[in-house]
Amino acid sequence: MITLHHLEASRSFRIIWLLEELELSYQIERHERHPETMRAQSSLKAVHPLGKAPVLCDNGFTLIESGAIIEYLLNRYDTRGLRPPISSEDYLRYSQWMHFAEGSLMPPALLTLVLNKMANARVPFFARSIVKKTVNSTLEGFVMPDLNTKLDFLDTELGNTGWFCGSHFSAADIQMGFALQVLHGRGLVGDNLLNIKAFLEAIRLRPAYQRAKEKAGLLTLSLPGKNESQEPKVEPSVDATSASTTDAAR
Amino acid sequence: MITLHHLEASRSFRIIWLLEELELSYQIERHERHPETMRAQSSLKAVHPLGKAPVLCDNGFTLIESGAIIEYLLNRYDTRGLRPPISSEDYLRYSQWMHFAEGSLMPPALLTLVLNKMANARVPFFARSIVKKTVNSTLEGFVMPDLNTKLDFLDTELGNTGWFCGSHFSAADIQMGFALQVLHGRGLVGDNLLNIKAFLEAIRLRPAYQRAKEKAGLLTLSLPGKNESQEPKVEPSVDATSASTTDAAR
Repeated sequence: MITLHHLEASRSFRIIWLLEELELSYQIERHERHPETMRAQSSLKAVHPLGKAPVLCDNGFTLIESGAIIEYLLNRYDTRGLRPPISSEDYLRYSQWMHFAEGSLMPPALLTLVLNKMANARVPFFARSIVKKTVNSTLEGFVMPDLNTKLDFLDTELGNTGWFCGSHFSAADIQMGFALQVLHGRGLVGDNLLNIKAFLEAIRLRPAYQRAKEKAGLLTLSLPGKNESQEPKVEPSVDATSASTTDAAR
Repeated sequence: MITLHHLEASRSFRIIWLLEELELSYQIERHERHPETMRAQSSLKAVHPLGKAPVLCDNGFTLIESGAIIEYLLNRYDTRGLRPPISSEDYLRYSQWMHFAEGSLMPPALLTLVLNKMANARVPFFARSIVKKTVNSTLEGFVMPDLNTKLDFLDTELGNTGWFCGSHFSAADIQMGFALQVLHGRGLVGDNLLNIKAFLEAIRLRPAYQRAKEKAGLLTLSLPGKNESQEPKVEPSVDATSASTTDAAR
């Protein structure tokens, strides 16, 4: 039996979504977040030394990292063609997006979360504006220009077919869709990025996505005052290991 | 002809190293960093809209992301067995590390770079200690504990065979080796992590690594005052898109 160790509002949503797309039989082991730090409770550490979600157990093996878990499930159970044939040009795109989601898109999301948390840290009143200015200088000078360049690029790419590789939905849309959802949930996807918005709407309409949402609980954690998402949200905590999804391994 | 677009002290070193391991014929297109910002000059933007390295061109296709480029080269040209058979348990480990390097290990490296840069930002003297304290609180409270948990985990994993998957060197050692090298170059790998240190020494002794080093120039960018690496280094700039390797796409 496939067992997914799931943490609410974490990357493990991706895996529930994929399992639903594949219509597989599986069980979910739920782990709680600490009510104050929002980090995963120690029960996840008993499953894997890093104590992050998702963790997949199947066939005697314990696996971490969204990308690796998705590849494993596709290698073993994909009868729906959620990955293009390895010899096709679409496979190159697929592979690129599978790595891009966590390698290039989540890091600026992580930075916005940590820096916004710092800008709102409690400091003596006389230094408050200086701390905010220092943080904002990094956000506006480095983080946001980089993030916006990437989002513009993604918006253009999605303009081809509406999906990330080829003319059909693939597992790359799950891997990238979660990252875009996190950014959108924090108000970081500009209104001009119409292809990204249409893509997010298209994935939300998928029956497997809707079933996953019912099983997963909260999908993403959002920043206070930045909530424009259609998804439910809670207050975030800063976790160096993840972007908006604290304690979620990649 | 395979063309690699290379930026000194960036993730594109990984690809040169792999090309040397595979003993392939290829050409390197070198791009310069801006002498002040250390970001890639605009010549890279002409190759790919994101303007980051590595970019690989082959067979009429332009590909980004270290992980995707490595997979492409192995699918097409691997005659050395640098990836375990897809049906083996070692393949699961391989896949996990291929995603872990950029998904889990580089993000805390990125945070240490950005936060250290902020701690040393020019601010009015009366607020200087408050800014440093705010930054250090995030570093010591979140970033370093997370990074150290991950490094401890990696040190234990490397204790099995000395390599990341199975008993032989694989492309996962290239993907992970670069990330560990970056962290080591910034003095972030503790002296107690003997298996990581032995691993770094083992990869440096590989003839392909040494040939790649000659062709690549600087391997990593390091933080001022944190240089304990055996590698050459330059002063860093902060780039929201990468960790120690500014302007390097993943």
